[in-house]
Amino acid sequence: MSSVIIYSGGMDSSVLLYQRKADIALAVSFQYGSKHNARELESARANCMALGIEHKVVHLDFVADLFRSDLLQSGGSIPEGHFEDEIMRSTVIPFRNGIMLSIATGIAESMDCNEVLIANHAGNHAIYPDCRALFIRAMGMAMTEGTFSHIQLTAPFTRMTKREIALEGKRIGMDFGLTYSCYKGGPIHCGKCRTYVERKEALAGFDTTEYMA
Amino acid sequence: MSSVIIYSGGMDSSVLLYQRKADIALAVSFQYGSKHNARELESARANCMALGIEHKVVHLDFVADLFRSDLLQSGGSIPEGHFEDEIMRSTVIPFRNGIMLSIATGIAESMDCNEVLIANHAGNHAIYPDCRALFIRAMGMAMTEGTFSHIQLTAPFTRMTKREIALEGKRIGMDFGLTYSCYKGGPIHCGKCRTYVERKEALAGFDTTEYMA
Repeated sequence: MSSVIIYSGGMDSSVLLYQRKADIALAVSFQYGSKHNARELESARANCMALGIEHKVVHLDFVADLFRSDLLQSGGSIPEGHFEDEIMRSTVIPFRNGIMLSIATGIAESMDCNEVLIANHAGNHAIYPDCRALFIRAMGMAMTEGTFSHIQLTAPFTRMTKREIALEGKRIGMDFGLTYSCYKGGPIHCGKCRTYVERKEALAGFDTTEYMA
Repeated sequence: MSSVIIYSGGMDSSVLLYQRKADIALAVSFQYGSKHNARELESARANCMALGIEHKVVHLDFVADLFRSDLLQSGGSIPEGHFEDEIMRSTVIPFRNGIMLSIATGIAESMDCNEVLIANHAGNHAIYPDCRALFIRAMGMAMTEGTFSHIQLTAPFTRMTKREIALEGKRIGMDFGLTYSCYKGGPIHCGKCRTYVERKEALAGFDTTEYMA
C-alpha cells in the first residue's frame, strides 16, 4: 500500500499514523480557521517529523468565508460567555469528512497512491453522520469508482471507542505526549474542555507525560 | 426541492440551471486557476443574474498550489507549442467531481437545502471515472448518509449526450448565446478547440447567435 492519511495531530489520527507509518507517503492536515487548529498542526508537524513522513497543509479558506457570512447573516456578533459554543460551531463543518476525503483522494490519485486513511471513530463524534459506517462504506465506493487507480478508503477505527484506540496506540508503543487534544488551542492542554476530558478518560492508567495548565 | 447547483457557466450546466431554475437556491462555481475558468465565470454570473439566482464562487487555491508544485517537481517549465496540452492538464483535476460535490453538499447542508445538482454527461468527459454512473450512484449514497438532512444528488444528464442536452435546452427555450464553451478563455469563442467543436456539433441547426473569433 502507498497511502495518504488525513491527519489532524490529535490522538486518534496519531495512533493511525504510527500504526501505518510504513505505508504512508503523505500526511495531509486541513486548516479551516478554528481556534484549536493551529496548535493541533504543531503536533501534526512534530509527529510527522519524528517519523520522517512528508506533511502538507491544505487551507480551506472557502469554509471560513462561507461560515463567516453565515454567522453574519444569522444575527451579527456572537455573545460573550459562550466561548465553548463558538468553538463548537466553528469546528462543525457540514460534511467535513466528505470534503477532506475527496481532496485527499484527488491528492492520492495525483501522487499514484492507492489508499486514503482516516481515523473517524465510534466516540461521541459519531453524532455526525459523516463519521458513521454507512457513510464510510458509500464514500469508499465513490472513491474507488471515481478514480483511475481505484483508490481504497481505510477507516479502521469506525467501530472502535477512543479508549480502544488509545489501547492500540499503547500496544504499538507510541508516545502520546506528542499529541494534542484541546479545543482551547493554547500551548498546553487546558484540562477542562470536552475534548481534553475525553482524552484523559481514554489514556486513564497510561504512563504518559501530559503538558497541563 | 431546494437545491444547490454546481455551475460552470458552460453549456451543460446552463441547461440544468434553466431547467431547474425554480428550485435553485444557490449556484456555486469553482475557481481553480485554469485559463478558461475566468471567462466561464463571466457567463455563469450573467446567466445567474438573468434568472435572479444567487451565485457564489468557491476558490480552490489548494488545487493550484498542489498542481503547481507537481508540475515543478516533474520537470520545470512547460514547453511552448503545447498550449492545448497545458490547458488540458490544468483542467484535469483528479476526483474533481468528488471534490466539488462534497463542498456543495457542505454548503447545501448549511443552507438547509436538500438537493445538489450536477451536469456531468455521457460525452467524451466520461473518460473520467468521476463522471460515470457508478461514481454518481455511490457519491449520492455518501451524500445522503453523510448529512443530517439526507441530501440528494441529482445528475440528470449522466446517460445523455451533449446533443441530447442541447435539445433539452432548446425545448425549454433557453438562450445559448449567454453560455461559453472554449478552452482558450478569450472574450469570444476561438472556434477551433475541442470544447468549441463539441459545442458546435451539439448546437447544429439551432438558431443561436455565436460570438466568434
